[in-house]
Amino acid sequence: MVMTTTTKPMLDAYPQEIELDRGRLAEVIDTLNDCAEACTSCADACLSEPMVAELITCIRTNLDCADICGTTARVLSRHTGDDVRVTRGMLEACATACAACAAECAQHSDMEHCRICAEACRTCEHACRELIAAMG
Amino acid sequence: MVMTTTTKPMLDAYPQEIELDRGRLAEVIDTLNDCAEACTSCADACLSEPMVAELITCIRTNLDCADICGTTARVLSRHTGDDVRVTRGMLEACATACAACAAECAQHSDMEHCRICAEACRTCEHACRELIAAMG
Amino acid sequence: MVMTTTTKPMLDAYPQEIELDRGRLAEVIDTLNDCAEACTSCADACLSEPMVAELITCIRTNLDCADICGTTARVLSRHTGDDVRVTRGMLEACATACAACAAECAQHSDMEHCRICAEACRTCEHACRELIAAMG
Amino acid sequence: MVMTTTTKPMLDAYPQEIELDRGRLAEVIDTLNDCAEACTSCADACLSEPMVAELITCIRTNLDCADICGTTARVLSRHTGDDVRVTRGMLEACATACAACAAECAQHSDMEHCRICAEACRTCEHACRELIAAMG
Repeated sequence: MVMTTTTKPMLDAYPQEIELDRGRLAEVIDTLNDCAEACTSCADACLSEPMVAELITCIRTNLDCADICGTTARVLSRHTGDDVRVTRGMLEACATACAACAAECAQHSDMEHCRICAEACRTCEHACRELIAAMG
Repeated sequence: MVMTTTTKPMLDAYPQEIELDRGRLAEVIDTLNDCAEACTSCADACLSEPMVAELITCIRTNLDCADICGTTARVLSRHTGDDVRVTRGMLEACATACAACAAECAQHSDMEHCRICAEACRTCEHACRELIAAMG
Repeated sequence: MVMTTTTKPMLDAYPQEIELDRGRLAEVIDTLNDCAEACTSCADACLSEPMVAELITCIRTNLDCADICGTTARVLSRHTGDDVRVTRGMLEACATACAACAAECAQHSDMEHCRICAEACRTCEHACRELIAAMG
Repeated sequence: MVMTTTTKPMLDAYPQEIELDRGRLAEVIDTLNDCAEACTSCADACLSEPMVAELITCIRTNLDCADICGTTARVLSRHTGDDVRVTRGMLEACATACAACAAECAQHSDMEHCRICAEACRTCEHACRELIAAMG
């Protein structure tokens, strides 16, 4: 669904300097929030599959990834850079979680929800890694 | 920013029946996630204003609303209707929080971040109330 | 496990008035955080049961209850009473979620994790309802 | 306040093997949840101080640390070790966030809430680092 998020306009209205490009930052935050939603939704869809017993690892990885992406989006939204190590640490943990979830979901990509979720996780992992690189 | 969320495709891939219309459900979830992000961002922008001491109530209301919208989005994403009272209870709490935050932010709508956030909260309040009505 | 939480000392150090009794407030917050943890843990234990396919509703209710209790604890920790309707709305939604989760877990109380979780949810439901009553 | 948490009994009821010692795991989870609560509460207490304008960095660091500790507790509660890198990544990000918050709060330890919070963060940082070491 095409959605107009307020993330970028909100960052544009931030009254002080931000060391990162606001467009790029907004894009990463939107990507994180979308990945969190995809993972929450995928865990629930897996729970509704007849073969749920074979999807336990997928469900747990989904739940971890949803929590971690959501928290990373919040940390980035407070983007103050007062201690850049906290932001970088979360981005690294998040890239790791997204990579794990993408790999897990990719194993059952015959199920559409796992296919979409794997893709969302891979996109999110790349977004995190690119932002880490941009942070210098 | 225009963003293509995976919320609707994920709900379309859900392998069992959902009592609510999937398009409408996806729209409410996207609205909730956007409102959560706007409130997190508005709290942070308020913290960066020179007049922060006058924005304390706004910051607290933003933080409450961000947490409540995020949790409501998750509850809706597990949409099972096993106990519709839980979903309805959260939607009602969320509409109340959004109304409170919209009213608070509207008082400082000369600041662009509060203006945008008030609008996001009002939109989200209406989305919650309409979904409550649709749940019958 | 006996744990000395910092919840009460932190509330005692709050530099302004609180309309509710601080000891009672701290107790409810601790109860909410413990219930959130029990529900997160119960969802995970259910996922590890051989009969997981019969525990789907329990897992979802656990996940909802964990999120709702956690958010209610945060809202109470910001206890400002600027808009008491938000706090009351969350307490009501939380009591509903705890009641639903207690009822669901009680159906499988032969499993120790569901027995403990049902008890934690019932305790938490009562704590929420008593605080609502105390709020007048 | 002395609180009997259900964390350890819940882990004892977990129906499969856990590679880590359950007593130690429960202790770290309780420490994380207590630190999350202390940080949420400290952010709110800072907001109520007359000198709030000088506490902005402290409030943001508190909010980050609260979110990160809460998410780490959840990830540990799903302790499956299917991908130990996700758990280790979160523990490292969490230790970093706790160290940053402890250092920030320690600068205003004349305020009792910052003094208690700094201590909770330092305790939590050590708990995370010890668990990383124990994970081998």
